[in-house]
Amino acid sequence: MSTPSILILPGDGIGPEVMAEVVKVIDWFGDKRGLKFDVSHDLVGGAAYDKHGAPISDETMEKAQSVDAVLLGAVGGPKYDDLDFSVKPERGLLRLRKEMDLFANLRPAQCFDALADFSSLKKDIVAGLDIMIVRELTSGIYFGEPRGIFTENNERVGINTQRYTESEIERAARAAFELAMKRDKRLCSMEKANVMESGILWRDVVNEVAVDYPEVEVSHMYADNGAMQLVRAPKQFDVIVTDNLFGDILSDCAAMLTGSLGMLPSASLGLPMANGRPKAMYEPVHGSAPDIAGQGKANPIACVLSFAMALRYSFDQGDEATRLETAIETVLAGGARTADLLGEEGVTAISTTEMGDKIIEAL
Amino acid sequence: MSTPSILILPGDGIGPEVMAEVVKVIDWFGDKRGLKFDVSHDLVGGAAYDKHGAPISDETMEKAQSVDAVLLGAVGGPKYDDLDFSVKPERGLLRLRKEMDLFANLRPAQCFDALADFSSLKKDIVAGLDIMIVRELTSGIYFGEPRGIFTENNERVGINTQRYTESEIERAARAAFELAMKRDKRLCSMEKANVMESGILWRDVVNEVAVDYPEVEVSHMYADNGAMQLVRAPKQFDVIVTDNLFGDILSDCAAMLTGSLGMLPSASLGLPMANGRPKAMYEPVHGSAPDIAGQGKANPIACVLSFAMALRYSFDQGDEATRLETAIETVLAGGARTADLLGEEGVTAISTTEMGDKIIEAL
Ligand SMILES: CC(C)[C@H](C(=O)O)[C@@H](O)C(=O)O
Ligand SMILES: CC(C)[C@H](C(=O)O)[C@@H](O)C(=O)O
Repeated sequence: MSTPSILILPGDGIGPEVMAEVVKVIDWFGDKRGLKFDVSHDLVGGAAYDKHGAPISDETMEKAQSVDAVLLGAVGGPKYDDLDFSVKPERGLLRLRKEMDLFANLRPAQCFDALADFSSLKKDIVAGLDIMIVRELTSGIYFGEPRGIFTENNERVGINTQRYTESEIERAARAAFELAMKRDKRLCSMEKANVMESGILWRDVVNEVAVDYPEVEVSHMYADNGAMQLVRAPKQFDVIVTDNLFGDILSDCAAMLTGSLGMLPSASLGLPMANGRPKAMYEPVHGSAPDIAGQGKANPIACVLSFAMALRYSFDQGDEATRLETAIETVLAGGARTADLLGEEGVTAISTTEMGDKIIEAL
Repeated sequence: MSTPSILILPGDGIGPEVMAEVVKVIDWFGDKRGLKFDVSHDLVGGAAYDKHGAPISDETMEKAQSVDAVLLGAVGGPKYDDLDFSVKPERGLLRLRKEMDLFANLRPAQCFDALADFSSLKKDIVAGLDIMIVRELTSGIYFGEPRGIFTENNERVGINTQRYTESEIERAARAAFELAMKRDKRLCSMEKANVMESGILWRDVVNEVAVDYPEVEVSHMYADNGAMQLVRAPKQFDVIVTDNLFGDILSDCAAMLTGSLGMLPSASLGLPMANGRPKAMYEPVHGSAPDIAGQGKANPIACVLSFAMALRYSFDQGDEATRLETAIETVLAGGARTADLLGEEGVTAISTTEMGDKIIEAL
């Protein structure tokens, strides 16, 4: 096989800073573990808009389609708040998801032992938490037509459409069942089947896919109850599967349970390419944090862990992914903290670069 | 003015049990405070389906339209799980909301001092919490057309429509601003304007209404971030205003922060009637809890507090509402706990009826 390729899109805000640390890690794996990657860099989000007048250019899209994995930093910032909807930084991200057809968004919500105290939840409720949320990422109300702001009877009307086909639900569900099989074999599907017909179809299709996974224990929960249960007793869950919009909200809720957003990676996976690897994009769950951008305060761990997910899901290097994850646990256990993780007695913050260096050391 | 009228719809599961305690409280206010109500009873949800084949009959709807306030217990239960969508217990509730045009759903998330330990969140994060969520209740994806499950290209497609007119947003926003004026004068509006055009319109209209309330500090938050912030630091909020679906999820999330669902009431308000009172329905936030129904284990406080909201919002009896709320605080401070509130050293549960009696005593 030819050298695997990675496209790095640092984006806006703290994106470039955290991505610089990932590059160090990628280089380390090339030098020390013989895992060479063909790495290229390009623009997305506000950075792309500044240069091309669009949040992602057609050329960048083409590159993204041709590489083995995209690593994305973060997009957006107040500078772009007044831009037209169609060219906002987020549209770059949404175009990548849609055109690469990245239908399965994997969002682990894991609580790191060394950091359990940072949660707003009681320690015993979150210590050891390890949930995987699978969010459908290419359909639903994010992309359904008709959409827009229209005038009817002399007033404005805002319209969006939740639209799910059977096959869209099926492939997301299947991805979730596959993950459940590798984990604790429990899958909870969330929708609002008591109110929305699209939720009824969602539930039915999940039940149909379940037939192929008799070992997986399947349950269904209304999304509002899901939000409650995540807050009440998150450890009851193993894998959760849900649609694009519910997934957006519930995965952020779950992420915050861990108390350390700066730690959480995500993977967005699509169909297998000719070389057998899935179309894939990896990104931290946190945003572009414009308020601290350029100050060396950002935590690079979420972005580094996103590369660990790339090792596992794109490059079939599960052991190397674990090596990287273990190195990060070691660094945290050793007491290293970026500014987002302050609060413990006598601890002072290290910079983004210092955290990257410590990870390399621990490796 | 003629005697104010109340229609009691106990519904299913624990609904009848908790409502029985509310009736005692209503009677107490009649006997001891000279607040007489003309009370009638009827069916809703599964109970109505069992009798009429519909989750609310036309006659009951007519009564609901003609009274000053509806008090609802809870609807639903496993017995009705396999019913057709159109006659499920929930449809009774949704028909009441829609036909009475109850556009402003007020959901306080308050943490009772005596109960702060029951939260899964750390005590300092939730002690003293007092948020008011205003959820739009008659529009959005709950009611938008087209909706249904269709066949296209030989597969099923589930469709729902999020649809908001300017005037629908405006009246919900106005209700929220009015509440903010009576509270801490801070309003946070939540939507997904970065992804949904209906969210852009929502944000624009909230900003337009804001002009009439220069004293209120307005902010906007994406709903996913809203879920995060509710978990991270809920006390940052005073009043939150959001649409029907986000409100469903975010208010349940907020409710669970308090750790005691059995304590939370809600009010759903519409336009003023000829007598100046708003169309109104009051109900606890908790569900019908079929697993404990009929065992005397249910906590009646949420339902009693819903009547307190009726005193305040329908009958202009704010002082009497406060009297009732204070009585409940006294009962809790005295250590009385129903089964949902167990866990403290040496405390045993009292029954639904005993809790009702204690409230009467404290009054
Ligand atoms: C930035 C935004 C468009 C995006 C979303 O809504 O999907 C974000 O919140 C996320 O969850 O990745
Ligand atoms: C029972 C159900 C239809 C309802 C809703 O989704 O609105 C409930 O969850 C609520 O929040 O009152």
